[in-house]
Amino acid sequence: MTQLRLALAQINPTVGDFAGNTELIVNAARNAREAGAQLLAVGEMALTGYPIEDLVLREAFVANSAAALAQLQQRLGDSQLDDVALIVGALGADGPVRPQAVGARSLAGARNMAVLLHRGQVVAKQNKHHLPTHGVFDENRHFVPGNQLSIVTMASDDGPIKLGMLVCEDLWHVNGPLAACASKDIGVLVCINASPYEYGKDAARVAVCQQAARHTGAIIAYVNLVGGQDELVFDGSSIVVHPDGRVLAHAPSYEDHLLVVDLDLPTEHLKRHTPDTALPTELSELPEQPTITIEHAQTMLRPRPVNVKPAPAGSAQLIRKERGQEQQTWQALSLGLRDYVHKNGFSCVVLGVSGGIDSAVCATLACDALGGSQVHGVALPSAFSSQHSYDDAADLAARTGLHYRVIPINGLVKTFSDELPLRGLAAQNVQARLRAVLLMGISNSEGQLLLSTGNKSELAVGYSTLYGDAAGAFAPLKDVYKTMVWKLARWRNSYAEQRDEQPPIPENSIVKPPSAELSLDQLDSDALPPYDVLDAILRLYVDSDAGREEIVAAGYDSELVDSVLRLIKTAEHKRRQAPPGPKVSTKAFGRDRRLPIANRFVG
Amino acid sequence: MTQLRLALAQINPTVGDFAGNTELIVNAARNAREAGAQLLAVGEMALTGYPIEDLVLREAFVANSAAALAQLQQRLGDSQLDDVALIVGALGADGPVRPQAVGARSLAGARNMAVLLHRGQVVAKQNKHHLPTHGVFDENRHFVPGNQLSIVTMASDDGPIKLGMLVCEDLWHVNGPLAACASKDIGVLVCINASPYEYGKDAARVAVCQQAARHTGAIIAYVNLVGGQDELVFDGSSIVVHPDGRVLAHAPSYEDHLLVVDLDLPTEHLKRHTPDTALPTELSELPEQPTITIEHAQTMLRPRPVNVKPAPAGSAQLIRKERGQEQQTWQALSLGLRDYVHKNGFSCVVLGVSGGIDSAVCATLACDALGGSQVHGVALPSAFSSQHSYDDAADLAARTGLHYRVIPINGLVKTFSDELPLRGLAAQNVQARLRAVLLMGISNSEGQLLLSTGNKSELAVGYSTLYGDAAGAFAPLKDVYKTMVWKLARWRNSYAEQRDEQPPIPENSIVKPPSAELSLDQLDSDALPPYDVLDAILRLYVDSDAGREEIVAAGYDSELVDSVLRLIKTAEHKRRQAPPGPKVSTKAFGRDRRLPIANRFVG
Repeated sequence: MTQLRLALAQINPTVGDFAGNTELIVNAARNAREAGAQLLAVGEMALTGYPIEDLVLREAFVANSAAALAQLQQRLGDSQLDDVALIVGALGADGPVRPQAVGARSLAGARNMAVLLHRGQVVAKQNKHHLPTHGVFDENRHFVPGNQLSIVTMASDDGPIKLGMLVCEDLWHVNGPLAACASKDIGVLVCINASPYEYGKDAARVAVCQQAARHTGAIIAYVNLVGGQDELVFDGSSIVVHPDGRVLAHAPSYEDHLLVVDLDLPTEHLKRHTPDTALPTELSELPEQPTITIEHAQTMLRPRPVNVKPAPAGSAQLIRKERGQEQQTWQALSLGLRDYVHKNGFSCVVLGVSGGIDSAVCATLACDALGGSQVHGVALPSAFSSQHSYDDAADLAARTGLHYRVIPINGLVKTFSDELPLRGLAAQNVQARLRAVLLMGISNSEGQLLLSTGNKSELAVGYSTLYGDAAGAFAPLKDVYKTMVWKLARWRNSYAEQRDEQPPIPENSIVKPPSAELSLDQLDSDALPPYDVLDAILRLYVDSDAGREEIVAAGYDSELVDSVLRLIKTAEHKRRQAPPGPKVSTKAFGRDRRLPIANRFVG
Repeated sequence: MTQLRLALAQINPTVGDFAGNTELIVNAARNAREAGAQLLAVGEMALTGYPIEDLVLREAFVANSAAALAQLQQRLGDSQLDDVALIVGALGADGPVRPQAVGARSLAGARNMAVLLHRGQVVAKQNKHHLPTHGVFDENRHFVPGNQLSIVTMASDDGPIKLGMLVCEDLWHVNGPLAACASKDIGVLVCINASPYEYGKDAARVAVCQQAARHTGAIIAYVNLVGGQDELVFDGSSIVVHPDGRVLAHAPSYEDHLLVVDLDLPTEHLKRHTPDTALPTELSELPEQPTITIEHAQTMLRPRPVNVKPAPAGSAQLIRKERGQEQQTWQALSLGLRDYVHKNGFSCVVLGVSGGIDSAVCATLACDALGGSQVHGVALPSAFSSQHSYDDAADLAARTGLHYRVIPINGLVKTFSDELPLRGLAAQNVQARLRAVLLMGISNSEGQLLLSTGNKSELAVGYSTLYGDAAGAFAPLKDVYKTMVWKLARWRNSYAEQRDEQPPIPENSIVKPPSAELSLDQLDSDALPPYDVLDAILRLYVDSDAGREEIVAAGYDSELVDSVLRLIKTAEHKRRQAPPGPKVSTKAFGRDRRLPIANRFVG
């Protein structure tokens, strides 16, 4: 029986912030050392932030990245932290990055790699093989795939431990380095990840880790980043899984954390392991991978345990209470919002509060993420705004402690219609756009980041005004269907009640029929099917790529389905100009779903 | 000596318009037959339109696409056009398309293929091997790569001709099917393309065709699509190149065309050809390709020439006069604009005309693309608008015949500032946004598509108002630097003079110092360096990915460079909400240049 104290650090890097990210990693190493860990791992591309996108085409970025890795080693040595072996995600580059020219197909020669550092040495590198281009990912654009598997032997008095490394996507595929890991007597397989949250992802990751652990006979140590980066929310939720399928440790979600766990590596793991579990085979059509070379050359002395007290209590949660979808979503949105604001150099936000459910939930999310004192709500009533709109907006402000002011838009609407009299939808849009001009005026003048309160149902069918309510720097509910907005509101209020706090969202905002209030007695249901029906169709069509026939077969009226599908197609041009917002579903609007604007296909 | 009359059809498909695209191909076959062609080729994915993007994930799209191919064969047979052998770009799919699920890495099993149809038979298929992910492309996301090279022997009394097919990117790479073509005695290698215009691309294509022709010993027949599709402009410019490097024919750019050329295939091409030219090697780091299987199985009878008159005069331009960059750019912009408007179901556009150069050039482009009667210009003067702004806008209207009206914004600005007094930039932005509300009101009310008149220099440094002058459905000058806007204006006026027409753009709009006129006596030069300096820095930084040090070394003031680079980074969030516009440069803002918003790296 050999033992290893392993630490997985969930850290929150920012893209391009080499100094800041280095500091986060050094701090993690300090904490890991204090916890007596012998091996520490942090997430994929932790040193650069993830995703770096086309920054990889810049020579200066690649050079700074290499310098940051050297600087990290220096800092670890100077701080006497380099006796902890560190696996860190970084950008590798073999050759010079070439600027693009007409007709040239430039590739950076860049690699998405895991690096094992110990006592000032680069002990081993493991490049990512499978470069995802599905969903939000563009890695085949940015990196060259790996073709090696590095296996490091950590030598020690009580027997050697063989260590393997994988980068994120490589854990999910039957061909490539994971298959090469089988029958190699690997004791611990460390997988570093930048895996964005979506509902159900944590369970999927656990299942994949279990399959991989059974297949390779290795303990899988899965470490993820945490934090928001543009539209992505990395949720942490790092896991350690035993070859027998047991989850040995499971880190909390949505927060920075150092997960420390003592691994007992039974001597039988050193015997040749025969794979007994099929790996996931979704990708049977994946192009054949180049032959993988196994590198066994690296050997390092296993760091001696500097602290043999038991691992700190509570750092490894053996059984983690699964949270409901509402709580997960709320925390992901709140983290995504907080980091978008802070990482872009803002501290305050402003938003229009109408008394409706969307703005109430957005405002409450912002108060949770930033504190009520950092949130500015503006009511912008028109002639069509009802008394309850004023009352509910004021009530929200009182409950959440946000700054609140009222700017009526009647005068502006009147002046506008004197200048350019309009009717129908065109006139309705004017109200929404004049509100946006006022809100952007406040945003520009007071340095507050404008939130757009639109939800995924609206964005899907175009039930919003471009440059009106759709305007904003960030849209917290962009990937949240209307029916889920209501659920979030109810969950948040009951969460408050459980903690003997005042529920932040006025009950009236939850129960009243939704209305844009852009014309007399207008209701959303005048133009759209009931939201439970609409959202069910949208989930099928948008999230699951189900077709018209399939949706009709599921029991929805064919004319209704046709009209919804037409609306979705026609709204594509609006979505292209929509602000970013945190992805929490299988398929978010944005880079996750790429469609032409000029397009005659509906179905 | 064997002979082949070849036709290349430059057609303009629309994504998802299976019926319309089929009609275009049938018409091309009819014209090719009338011209006596034995072999006809049309562009990449001509049947579906290009790029289809995530539509490929929809089973109904894939099924409709397969049905369209069958329908095309049926139509060709019914119209007795199937004795002309046809090579057409289409979507192939081997298996069912799987909807995505949490954690699943779905791939459609879809292929980007060239299909050879003849007398009701699918004679051969050639799948694209190299799936580009650079620049605007996402093909690795959407397709599975090919691993075969199909060689078709066209048997005939006067000797066989061996025919090869390639799809677009495969022509540009040293490894893959092009290398496999060498030493195979191929007489004609047909490459079908969806190659977007950018300045200098035509010359790059000619050079690549020449290299490929020399290397393979085959005549290269390069056929491109034509027309605008969202941000891309396919420029046609199809080429036929002899193994000795001669350009045998060169089709016109920016227009539908049937290029017909008689090929004399010398008997020596049937002798084993030894490659004597290195292929382009930009991609030496490209991952190793799977082994390519050569399929020789297909044999077809070569269509008999039905019309042995000489090929129609003028259809093949042996020596094409190269047009200057201004003319090329103008025609590409005009085509992109026309197709964006029409393919999205509009016929008219509206735009603000300020008397400045950007709106004058935009308006003239729109008049050229759509006709002056389809263009609506609105002057929206404020207290800061000078008399020459009124005069020059009215002059533009008189010269181009666009519909013209004036809506002063003083009243609205006054009402706004009574409600929310603002100063500085915030107050300036209000004027631009109130103009956008008026223009969008007209657009919504009268069904005209709003053009944004912003240029690439503004978009780069954020010198525009989000939801203000940046608002619009399409931005014709999005990829045109300010200095090029002036050149375009001068070129267009001199083009008119050469044709004894009235120059459309008022001289005063060209010569006056640029100003946003949002405050008293404001000039662009108050906030920005002179445009010739700014644009030179932008070309280096944006188009060529040159770094700070390189730009400073080129002789630009380091503080100035730093401030410009900071502006570019900070404006990323604005660019994400910018309207689409036609790509005409090496690197356009949009899918061509993908960067994070939250990003601490400048350099």
